[in-house]
Amino acid sequence: MQSWKTIKRDTILNFNKFLSIEAHTVELPNGRIIDNWPWVVTPDFVNVVAVDENGRFLIFRQTKYAIDGASFAPIGGYLEPGEEPLQAAQRELLEETGYTANNWHYLGSYAVDGNRGVGKAHFFLAQNAQPTTEINADDLEEQELLFLTHEEVSAALTSGYFKVLPWAAIIALVSIRR
Amino acid sequence: MQSWKTIKRDTILNFNKFLSIEAHTVELPNGRIIDNWPWVVTPDFVNVVAVDENGRFLIFRQTKYAIDGASFAPIGGYLEPGEEPLQAAQRELLEETGYTANNWHYLGSYAVDGNRGVGKAHFFLAQNAQPTTEINADDLEEQELLFLTHEEVSAALTSGYFKVLPWAAIIALVSIRR
Repeated sequence: MQSWKTIKRDTILNFNKFLSIEAHTVELPNGRIIDNWPWVVTPDFVNVVAVDENGRFLIFRQTKYAIDGASFAPIGGYLEPGEEPLQAAQRELLEETGYTANNWHYLGSYAVDGNRGVGKAHFFLAQNAQPTTEINADDLEEQELLFLTHEEVSAALTSGYFKVLPWAAIIALVSIRR
Repeated sequence: MQSWKTIKRDTILNFNKFLSIEAHTVELPNGRIIDNWPWVVTPDFVNVVAVDENGRFLIFRQTKYAIDGASFAPIGGYLEPGEEPLQAAQRELLEETGYTANNWHYLGSYAVDGNRGVGKAHFFLAQNAQPTTEINADDLEEQELLFLTHEEVSAALTSGYFKVLPWAAIIALVSIRR
């Protein structure tokens, strides 16, 4: 089964460091050429489910522009230029919660949109998380840190409290490991 | 906890029916104004995990532009204008597999990107799926329909065979229901 080939790529909008848009010319395995295939470039990001030594999940209750009302959320943020996913995961855990963890599990990397790209999500589970420093987050959203049992997190997931796709995805991926 | 307010929205790129880009002016709960917040408009889509009367999962092995090599995938596609998510799910199941199902479960709707939008994913589980008609798909990708046990699907998920975020998400969400 052959992948499509990118024959040509043109940047048609360079909005800012968070978004640019490309038009690709693509060749299908049967030789057919498709012009003007839209491709969305956004930074890769990490999400982290952190669990403390008592088995409590560190979960935010927060707002986010794309959703109505508050949502439950894991730790997360964009990779900085040149940063590896695990580095970003460890940095975000520390910045957003003040915790560190010595037990990290990689849960996979996923293309956000199979047609348009829209960056990659890199998922991690951080176990034995311990309070280390003060919180030093630069997020624009209001957020409140909760410490929930696995049962509370699972119930929140099935009740639709995780409203953003990568957040529901990583919570579900952690749940099936347990 | 208050949501951000959209004060102004301008379309700055109308690429085609699959993609347009807006710049929003946003007001935060503390009164701060943010100009030029990028917002990505793409069609909402559905994904469907279909399970036949023998408990076999209908899973595609297929290519997709944003990923390397083949991936396992659920049924899925964009909503047509004016279409409800469940209608789209039932249409896509029939078009892509020739199956119908009489037992539908809604698994939630999720903003693909919490900052930029990028449409919504609507997820469904279709049980007791039965062959009804010929396949009538208009997808550009090569694809092969597999009939897998739940154990095979779970193993494929943890092995990283579902490479696109909504695909891994719906498979994980179905797995935690069982």
